[in-house]
Amino acid sequence: MMNSEGGNEDCLGWAARDASGVLSPYKFSRKAVGNDDVYVKITHCGICYADVVSTRNSFGATNYPVVPGHEIAGIVTKVGSNVQRFNVGDHVGVGTYVNSCRDCRNCNAGLEIQCGKGRVFTYDSVDSDGTITKGGYSTFIVVHHRYCFMIPKSYPLASAAPLLCAGITVYSPMIRHNMNQPGKSLGVIGLGGLGHMAVKFGKAFGLDVTVFSTSISKKDEALNLLGADNFVVSSDQEQMSALAESLDFIIDTASGNHPFDPYMFLLKTCGVLVLVGAPSEIKLSPGSLIGGMRSISGSAAGGTKDTQEMIDLCAEKEIYPNIEVIPIEYANEAFERIINKDVKYRFVIDIENSFK
Amino acid sequence: MMNSEGGNEDCLGWAARDASGVLSPYKFSRKAVGNDDVYVKITHCGICYADVVSTRNSFGATNYPVVPGHEIAGIVTKVGSNVQRFNVGDHVGVGTYVNSCRDCRNCNAGLEIQCGKGRVFTYDSVDSDGTITKGGYSTFIVVHHRYCFMIPKSYPLASAAPLLCAGITVYSPMIRHNMNQPGKSLGVIGLGGLGHMAVKFGKAFGLDVTVFSTSISKKDEALNLLGADNFVVSSDQEQMSALAESLDFIIDTASGNHPFDPYMFLLKTCGVLVLVGAPSEIKLSPGSLIGGMRSISGSAAGGTKDTQEMIDLCAEKEIYPNIEVIPIEYANEAFERIINKDVKYRFVIDIENSFK
Repeated sequence: MMNSEGGNEDCLGWAARDASGVLSPYKFSRKAVGNDDVYVKITHCGICYADVVSTRNSFGATNYPVVPGHEIAGIVTKVGSNVQRFNVGDHVGVGTYVNSCRDCRNCNAGLEIQCGKGRVFTYDSVDSDGTITKGGYSTFIVVHHRYCFMIPKSYPLASAAPLLCAGITVYSPMIRHNMNQPGKSLGVIGLGGLGHMAVKFGKAFGLDVTVFSTSISKKDEALNLLGADNFVVSSDQEQMSALAESLDFIIDTASGNHPFDPYMFLLKTCGVLVLVGAPSEIKLSPGSLIGGMRSISGSAAGGTKDTQEMIDLCAEKEIYPNIEVIPIEYANEAFERIINKDVKYRFVIDIENSFK
Repeated sequence: MMNSEGGNEDCLGWAARDASGVLSPYKFSRKAVGNDDVYVKITHCGICYADVVSTRNSFGATNYPVVPGHEIAGIVTKVGSNVQRFNVGDHVGVGTYVNSCRDCRNCNAGLEIQCGKGRVFTYDSVDSDGTITKGGYSTFIVVHHRYCFMIPKSYPLASAAPLLCAGITVYSPMIRHNMNQPGKSLGVIGLGGLGHMAVKFGKAFGLDVTVFSTSISKKDEALNLLGADNFVVSSDQEQMSALAESLDFIIDTASGNHPFDPYMFLLKTCGVLVLVGAPSEIKLSPGSLIGGMRSISGSAAGGTKDTQEMIDLCAEKEIYPNIEVIPIEYANEAFERIINKDVKYRFVIDIENSFK
């Protein structure tokens, strides 16, 4: 049952046309607003490293043209007849997925991101109607209300955008592994979009936070801007040894390969390292796990329940990502800067003003 | 404060004198019974694979002569003046450790096995008095009461012995990772001393248990003797594929190297694989962890709290290891049979009758 209103509107966006990954203006159609759908006028979209990777066809399966963007914030402009949760004018977010089967074990547990049957990513993914999804580097999106999240009006939409991927990716495993116990200690490996949010959540939960970075250059900001308690250059053996068996948890946000054993030995008995970055292989000595009854766990984004909780927490505790707001015309340069790790700590595209 | 009674008694045992690992009779002294100690007349001692490894100096640090044995069951014969928990005549067990600092975070949490400051293993370990500990292939042992466990008199001492290492090694992570929820599904990799206890605990907890083995020869016993629900030959791709994302937990008791990814993909979202075997390296594709938010965890033996709980559970639910009781004179042959995986499922030395 499709609502005829809203069908075949012109959506303006920016797309990559080939593996060069260069973004340029692109016009396309979105599906009509169905009875369960919400039409979101996009005001802001964060730039995730995944956007860089997929526009350059790094996984070899990109469907061009691809409109990236899965850290979407905006304003509800229309709603389908069945939608009770949202009204026109509400501020909402859309994250890394826009559909799922809504009927499996994972969906029923609020872990739609893990739905094996019908999960559809926000861009470059085949939707249930056979079309390829297009992301948030565009003026509006039409999405089933289940995959929309309420953003309190007190919370700036530009700041909300990065919560939808960077934020939930660290928040979800923190909650799942009980990292919200005041007084416990958290290590954060890597200080990019994800890592800086892990520091902020850690401090909001009352944890003692140690940042591990390959570069001393991030020390001042880690301690004084983000509020971390300690900073360690990971190549400094002496600093690393001094922390042996001292951490309850580690969140590993590093995107490149690195050894795991040196970090595992920093964990207390029964400690947990959660991997949210993307190395190409994980190698461990069994002693890293067995000796201290330690665990290594993985995580990707998070379900709808966690996502709404996280947004509400950020509003309540005034936790804001550090962002650099840019016009869409700057997106290609922003991609280059992300590759060069030259961003503090998330680019957010001002969609609303870019397309005026 | 040492109690003079009990000092310098002659203890009869069997020891390996060199890296051949051949065991032969050996006489030695034990410490006197201190105020906090219990003197245990050993009736039975299980044979653990660790005994084989350490007598052959496989870790390169064995102090000869070494008296192995850390699955000890026996009868209290004397107690120190401070000991309230045990009386002469009580049936007790001693496991893989006989001392710890009793003052650190891990000791205070009942995880004495993880004490970094003062943990002393039951054999071939330097005790707080500087002596090298000697294990349960001997007529008696003197041990601080904290590292002694009460064995209900209804429970045969011969059956109790393997609980002290094989039993607790699988029980402890099962409890820690909440594998005691009826209706959940458990995979058990390897069907030796540890694996067969994991099957029994799994059934006692109401789990659906699947055994993974390299050999079809174990199928009948797994299903009909041990009560497993399913049996899979791990090299059978079709059987493995059919189980994709179907298990809540896996306990990996395999002692050799094997790939981990094929097992990780059998776990449901947020599933856990616990490693209690001893491969030389762990290699994983990040997708094994990240995609399904899965974890791999390690574990070794267990603390005093878990150990007593496990013994009480075994007595209450009548869970017994499958054992082959042997005289000490058969120990060398038993070691060979263990190396050849020819044991169902644990050898237990009848110490009492061997030394009559």
